[in-house]
Amino acid sequence: MTTSFHPPSRTLMGPGPSDVYPRILEALSRPTVGHLDPAFIRMMDELKSLLQFAFRTTNQLTIPISAPGSAGMECVIANLVEPGEKVIVCQNGVFGGRIKENVERCGGVAIMVMDDFGKPIDLEKVEDAFKKHSDAVAIAFVHSETSTGVRSDAETLCALARAYGCLTIVDAVTTLAGIPLEVDAWGIDAIYSGTQKCLSCVPGLSPVSFSPRAAEKITKRSSRVQSWFLDTNLVMGYWGTDAKRSYHHTAPVNSLYALHESLVILEEEGLEKSWQRHRLNHLALVAGLESLGLEFVVEENSRLPQLNAVSFPKSVDEAAVRSTLLSEYRLEIGAGLGALAGKVWRIGLMGYASNPKNVNLCVSALGKALNAQGHRCDVSRAVDKIGQVYS
Amino acid sequence: MTTSFHPPSRTLMGPGPSDVYPRILEALSRPTVGHLDPAFIRMMDELKSLLQFAFRTTNQLTIPISAPGSAGMECVIANLVEPGEKVIVCQNGVFGGRIKENVERCGGVAIMVMDDFGKPIDLEKVEDAFKKHSDAVAIAFVHSETSTGVRSDAETLCALARAYGCLTIVDAVTTLAGIPLEVDAWGIDAIYSGTQKCLSCVPGLSPVSFSPRAAEKITKRSSRVQSWFLDTNLVMGYWGTDAKRSYHHTAPVNSLYALHESLVILEEEGLEKSWQRHRLNHLALVAGLESLGLEFVVEENSRLPQLNAVSFPKSVDEAAVRSTLLSEYRLEIGAGLGALAGKVWRIGLMGYASNPKNVNLCVSALGKALNAQGHRCDVSRAVDKIGQVYS
Repeated sequence: MTTSFHPPSRTLMGPGPSDVYPRILEALSRPTVGHLDPAFIRMMDELKSLLQFAFRTTNQLTIPISAPGSAGMECVIANLVEPGEKVIVCQNGVFGGRIKENVERCGGVAIMVMDDFGKPIDLEKVEDAFKKHSDAVAIAFVHSETSTGVRSDAETLCALARAYGCLTIVDAVTTLAGIPLEVDAWGIDAIYSGTQKCLSCVPGLSPVSFSPRAAEKITKRSSRVQSWFLDTNLVMGYWGTDAKRSYHHTAPVNSLYALHESLVILEEEGLEKSWQRHRLNHLALVAGLESLGLEFVVEENSRLPQLNAVSFPKSVDEAAVRSTLLSEYRLEIGAGLGALAGKVWRIGLMGYASNPKNVNLCVSALGKALNAQGHRCDVSRAVDKIGQVYS
Repeated sequence: MTTSFHPPSRTLMGPGPSDVYPRILEALSRPTVGHLDPAFIRMMDELKSLLQFAFRTTNQLTIPISAPGSAGMECVIANLVEPGEKVIVCQNGVFGGRIKENVERCGGVAIMVMDDFGKPIDLEKVEDAFKKHSDAVAIAFVHSETSTGVRSDAETLCALARAYGCLTIVDAVTTLAGIPLEVDAWGIDAIYSGTQKCLSCVPGLSPVSFSPRAAEKITKRSSRVQSWFLDTNLVMGYWGTDAKRSYHHTAPVNSLYALHESLVILEEEGLEKSWQRHRLNHLALVAGLESLGLEFVVEENSRLPQLNAVSFPKSVDEAAVRSTLLSEYRLEIGAGLGALAGKVWRIGLMGYASNPKNVNLCVSALGKALNAQGHRCDVSRAVDKIGQVYS
């Protein structure tokens, strides 16, 4: 007979999921009600408003997709891109490659603009692509590359796209609530995010938002959206503004309680305050890690405060360090992904996990683990450096 | 400022979600760990074994999809059906129609075998379709039609399919743990279910299983699966048997805790015992409802114990009755769907909610609500009839 699973105690400082607020875990476990219950539908309406607040948008079509961020990506692309249409896809990490996969599986043609892992998207290359492919219907890019910790200039990319008459598709999985994001002010047409990063909610849902311009393109499609489950025309029968909601699929009721609670917490803190908190804890982490002799992969101006990719001396057994952190300090940090596999650690400071205690834990534990491997570093000095940032 | 959402207290006797076991809600709220944490990966392995137990299969490719049952349906069809391939689709309710939608959106050709809402699938019509369409690659049908409460003869349908060299795709969303289901013994090639029905888990996941024959067809596809998120070739990099799991998407960690706990509970009770319990409570409900003068839509031999569709006198204001049950008894029952909208109630007795207390509550509350609308019925006699079944 199998027995109940009791997860080990962890501090989650990887690329996500991040530590979940205890309030959210409590909300998650409230009794399930029906997905058409009038009380639940009122909560759904609040949830849409809270997502508009978090995305800074008035877009009507702003909802959580009932599946993880990867499904949010697929939802946005499957709805917006018709077979044969050209999409300019920027790739400077793993997730740009995933966008390409999705565009092609929807029958679209991906025009690739490539940058190195760890570099922000090169605006000149993008402008060249716009000039060369005036028939492209959209540009798709990752605002916060979780695989490298780089932030690209979403505002300028969107302005460029508008100048060339293209729709914008923005991956904001790791962005939302962590760094400034202005869906309406920047003119973003379609955006998707995840719940398990800077919202500190459980993984499994993907908030998306479509501008009226994007919604119109979907309405005027000449072909059906290839996914029934992700077809926003159908999903909006359930999530729309009509008093009468029609069943599409059974909503993940409890996960939606959790997302609602995470957005209530974000509203209580304030969006700008959340951005500032992520920034401050990041600066403290930088001070501590650099004092240990570790180097950041991304140049200062483009670093994501919520996802810190650092490299280490070649002689370090990186997997052993991560294993020590997990077994001795119950601390999870992330390995490298794609081109950076084996070359970096990815340290998340997301949502609830972005706090001084975690910064200190991570720097101390990493320092001790490096010392244990014979790589001399001064842990107390690093902790002092952290303290100076907060003082 | 928005405040936290506190759901009203309910007894869920609709078509699902059903009442969730308190143990499962508690498991759901355990602290989130990373989706690549060694402890979590051991839990995933247990989860696969538990799903094999519940499906009665040794299929290696037996996993939960990270999205609701509708996505499980799409996963099975998108992986198995290639553009231009013919699939015989049986429709005797709403969900057969959804299968057709999915087959067509995957570029397949749906050969429809139609039966009335409330009738089981006609085996002769199916055999005719096999004879006429010898080039069909698969047959897809709904074992337990949630829209009508009818059970079709899955065992015979699968035997027929095998005789005609066709793969079988079975919708078991409402079946799993409620009535006998034998994936291996019946020769089912691909099956999907949901968590929010007879498993009494939270909604949001879809267990699926593919036979080696089905898995081989997927491996030998000439075209890519159109969905990146649901492509089992990629998903199995994370859920497969390799010691090293590669990241595909971020698993819905807490929902998977809940599914694990629901299957542990099922294993504790025993699969046959769960089927028997569903059957006994159903018989008690039948005795009570028939005593109130309500009629079952489905003939006795094909009734699902877990989903009871009953009709009422034309003069009954059915929406008002449901509204009274919800406001006065905190009891949810389901409305009719599709061709039966406004004509029936759908009363679920699923999983944790399949118990004598709920049977009594539902029959008493319905009786009183009917009396309040001037439709005389003897509630105490109905309760006596229920007692006789249990004695």
